[in-house]
Amino acid sequence: MKLSTPAEAEAAFYEAFSKADLDQMKAVWLDSPGVICTHPMAERIVGYRLVIGSFLGLFQGQGELAARITQVESLLTADLCVHTGVEVLHQDASEFRMQVTNVYRATNDGWRMVLHHASPVHTAKPPSRLQSKVH
Amino acid sequence: MKLSTPAEAEAAFYEAFSKADLDQMKAVWLDSPGVICTHPMAERIVGYRLVIGSFLGLFQGQGELAARITQVESLLTADLCVHTGVEVLHQDASEFRMQVTNVYRATNDGWRMVLHHASPVHTAKPPSRLQSKVH
Repeated sequence: MKLSTPAEAEAAFYEAFSKADLDQMKAVWLDSPGVICTHPMAERIVGYRLVIGSFLGLFQGQGELAARITQVESLLTADLCVHTGVEVLHQDASEFRMQVTNVYRATNDGWRMVLHHASPVHTAKPPSRLQSKVH
Repeated sequence: MKLSTPAEAEAAFYEAFSKADLDQMKAVWLDSPGVICTHPMAERIVGYRLVIGSFLGLFQGQGELAARITQVESLLTADLCVHTGVEVLHQDASEFRMQVTNVYRATNDGWRMVLHHASPVHTAKPPSRLQSKVH
């Protein structure tokens, strides 16, 4: 799969996610022990094998879960691209919104995902000083 | 303030955080409209002025909040460095742990923070498919 830009890599990631397509998810991520994935409310997962395994776990869950990213802000250098955005997930009739950071790296074979960090908003209590006057 | 490496910038960030030192926090972040900060369970904040304002809000809260980062994994290119780790926060007698992604950018004046994304673990329910078999 040729992913010529970070945007193409990101589109392929959300397509793989929404279709529960593990082969495509495997192709989107850089096959490296240094890649990182933090699912919502979960601990960080380090390394290609474990990251792909976590998506296998998700994909074996019940029901459809359509995911897309909106409001993308991009920070691009020659070989690394950081995206942040709001991830919109639809499961059955419910919509969930996550704050997300995605990082892509340029390789000889196109851009590949090296980091995914997603977190929910306003549904749990952080330390009081962290929730006091931020929003 | 000369921050010669991403590690120095990160140390300065957590020192500023723990001391509630707004001047140091202002020096750690790149003064750019593109910087991004996502506090735990909060919505993304975009731009230097708003990001610094969010820390002013935190620092005006009650009590001490000591913060440090552990278990750092680093992804470094010539001009951008992505760190992930576990942020340990102490407030009064309580300890909180956050999953964190920090990004630093090389400038002519040293390394500066351009992204901070912190999120808690296991204290709220994400969509069921996102919590099913990941951990």
